[in-house]
Amino acid sequence: MNILIKDIAAAVWKDGSCVVEKKTICIQGDMITGMDSIPEGFVPDKVIEGKDRLLIPGLVNSHTHAYMSVFRNLADDLSFDDWLFKSIMPIEDRLTGEDAYWGASLSILEMIRTGTTCFADMHMHINETTRAVEESGIRAVIARGLSGGSEDESGIRRLKEAIDEMENYRDCARISFMFGPHAPYSCAPEYLEQVIGKARENNVGIHIHLSESENEIHNMQRERGCTPIELMERIGLFDIPVLAAHCVQLTDSDMDILARRGVSVAINPKSNMKLGNGFARVPEMLERGINVCLGTDGAASNNALNLVGEMNAAALAYKGSTRNAQSVSAAQVFAAATRNGAKGLGLGSVTGTIEVGKKADLSILDLNNPQMRPKRNLISALSYSANGSEVDTVIINGRIIMENRELLTIDEEQVYYNIGKICDKLGITGGNENEQY
Amino acid sequence: MNILIKDIAAAVWKDGSCVVEKKTICIQGDMITGMDSIPEGFVPDKVIEGKDRLLIPGLVNSHTHAYMSVFRNLADDLSFDDWLFKSIMPIEDRLTGEDAYWGASLSILEMIRTGTTCFADMHMHINETTRAVEESGIRAVIARGLSGGSEDESGIRRLKEAIDEMENYRDCARISFMFGPHAPYSCAPEYLEQVIGKARENNVGIHIHLSESENEIHNMQRERGCTPIELMERIGLFDIPVLAAHCVQLTDSDMDILARRGVSVAINPKSNMKLGNGFARVPEMLERGINVCLGTDGAASNNALNLVGEMNAAALAYKGSTRNAQSVSAAQVFAAATRNGAKGLGLGSVTGTIEVGKKADLSILDLNNPQMRPKRNLISALSYSANGSEVDTVIINGRIIMENRELLTIDEEQVYYNIGKICDKLGITGGNENEQY
Repeated sequence: MNILIKDIAAAVWKDGSCVVEKKTICIQGDMITGMDSIPEGFVPDKVIEGKDRLLIPGLVNSHTHAYMSVFRNLADDLSFDDWLFKSIMPIEDRLTGEDAYWGASLSILEMIRTGTTCFADMHMHINETTRAVEESGIRAVIARGLSGGSEDESGIRRLKEAIDEMENYRDCARISFMFGPHAPYSCAPEYLEQVIGKARENNVGIHIHLSESENEIHNMQRERGCTPIELMERIGLFDIPVLAAHCVQLTDSDMDILARRGVSVAINPKSNMKLGNGFARVPEMLERGINVCLGTDGAASNNALNLVGEMNAAALAYKGSTRNAQSVSAAQVFAAATRNGAKGLGLGSVTGTIEVGKKADLSILDLNNPQMRPKRNLISALSYSANGSEVDTVIINGRIIMENRELLTIDEEQVYYNIGKICDKLGITGGNENEQY
Repeated sequence: MNILIKDIAAAVWKDGSCVVEKKTICIQGDMITGMDSIPEGFVPDKVIEGKDRLLIPGLVNSHTHAYMSVFRNLADDLSFDDWLFKSIMPIEDRLTGEDAYWGASLSILEMIRTGTTCFADMHMHINETTRAVEESGIRAVIARGLSGGSEDESGIRRLKEAIDEMENYRDCARISFMFGPHAPYSCAPEYLEQVIGKARENNVGIHIHLSESENEIHNMQRERGCTPIELMERIGLFDIPVLAAHCVQLTDSDMDILARRGVSVAINPKSNMKLGNGFARVPEMLERGINVCLGTDGAASNNALNLVGEMNAAALAYKGSTRNAQSVSAAQVFAAATRNGAKGLGLGSVTGTIEVGKKADLSILDLNNPQMRPKRNLISALSYSANGSEVDTVIINGRIIMENRELLTIDEEQVYYNIGKICDKLGITGGNENEQY
């Protein structure tokens, strides 16, 4: 389908800065084919009027666990260890693939509604997550969660499964893969080395949790006398493309390694605050030229997958933690949520900016909302004033996925119903039977 | 009008805790007259169905400067001093009362849309702010901004004006007043003593900025050898009811004073982060039993007046700053944004909770949103998942002000148009003529 977006305020990059300028955008098939001029012979099938709207590159959620929305608001105000080991993991073990499919669908619904067009996921049930991605029309980079020791049968089996599963989706243009070894504390170095070898063989990157909590650092120092980043450097993780989630607890030398080795860091400000892990050293990462991306983490530790809200947190949290109102600007946050995210996911030439030749992954915000008035400095407005509900239309891979707030690919009622059914089955609140509310 | 809200999940207080239970609420005139039972002879003129909705007490924004939305997104990513003294104050001086009216109207629009039914304002043009409050149907406690030295003619004049202006609105049930001496650094102690005397005479409380930035503390220590809180204690400020905004930089002894003297503190987590002022010691304030309220501050330092977003920041920021996932729970944040706020504004018997005998100030959220699913732990959901756009209906003083997202008292287009006109006049971006976007 050919789509024309007419006279719209568009967030585009110009001489290294992001600016908002009136543009007319042409989309042919899955691609942006015109921005300042209309390609010869272009006849639109559909015209979208730009008046009082803002066009942004679709947001890239660089770290999440989509299935986790089943557990949203289930275990809050707990310590990190009580949250993960006592509350989430025991129920997580009882989740089937079908459950994960509905959880992923709910998360995708929320992400699309708030302007996200692409996400990096990590989880065990990748077939079902991938099916939810395929059906919804969103773009994703899916990492099979992996953990284990060097002699651990199940670790090897999972790695083999990950490779097989990737084969099933070779043909879907919107889906690519990474390997997802969980973390240095849940994967033995020898196992990680195997994963690195297989990643190189299969030409995929690695999505991993690194240096999230103080405990993780203390344990690693005690057991191996180094930081998680130093260990990863030593075993060769950074020889292949890495998307490292969290990176809250870093030494200067850790940051130097990440910068030198071109590691992308997916920060998760809300999750890090909520679990008491503190604040990543984002201003210093940016100074070193590290590719900082933005993620929400899963809905059990956030508890939203709203990247506009996450931009707000990112623009505020590090100013607070460094007591410097000039650290981490709205423009830097916007870059993290779009261009940097795409690069971190290995999709820098595909998505993340509004440019001729890139896939048409676009979100449109309605400026007829009090929080978006006066209409000025819309990059600031995105981080500081918007809440995500302004997004009214979303295009992914050239296809209109949401139009005037109506989802065209997902049956919302059906998702809510099935989420309720899963809660009933698991015996947790939020179900349809004997519903509490 | 008699309103019946049927079978709705309602956030009510029970044995000292806030719980969500199915309730049926009766409203007669401006008051809640039934909750568990329907009063004899009650015939509703209007029935609101509760299915898949959440009823909360209308949120109380305990510190803002409503006119400031004219300056939204105008001066971001600047140091506190550059922001206040170089960017905001010079333009502020050129603002007329009529301009302030439209600014206040825009802010009120945003507050109602996101579930706020009452706010505490501080500004010079109180006649026009009061007019915007009266016309919109919202509830407010308005403080005339005051500043000056002891011999300063203009300070005395402003105080006299404040008293006169209060007289004009004696009859409006939704509007009450405080005095608003700006801060210890902008009001001489002798002037503050006069203000305190007049406040006592007129039986009103005081709304003041206290201990917001490190600079303020350093200057006060250098000039007077004490903290701002200690100075205020000494001159007798705390002998009358005080709503103290910010209180970011407090010593242990400052907190002891605030607790002992029953001072209400309006925290503003987003503004404090954005301006690099850091994090208030909220967990310790709560431990001491201080009445902690929640405010957004003005739209030039936030840049939203969305108290749901502010609840999210409050529930996350102090967990991050104390590295303790169990500090400042969602329930405590909810109390700050409702019951405590009402108490801090001197309206504890009027609003802030859903109780028979209180005014009907209520907000209704639509749970048919992905971020509110599964439907569980809705107090958690309010702070951690909601973004404010879920609010679909707002009742203030028994009157339906917004119904199914339609504002019944404010013409939104007219507000946007006039805000644009003011920007044109002031020669700042965001105007209607030669509009940038």
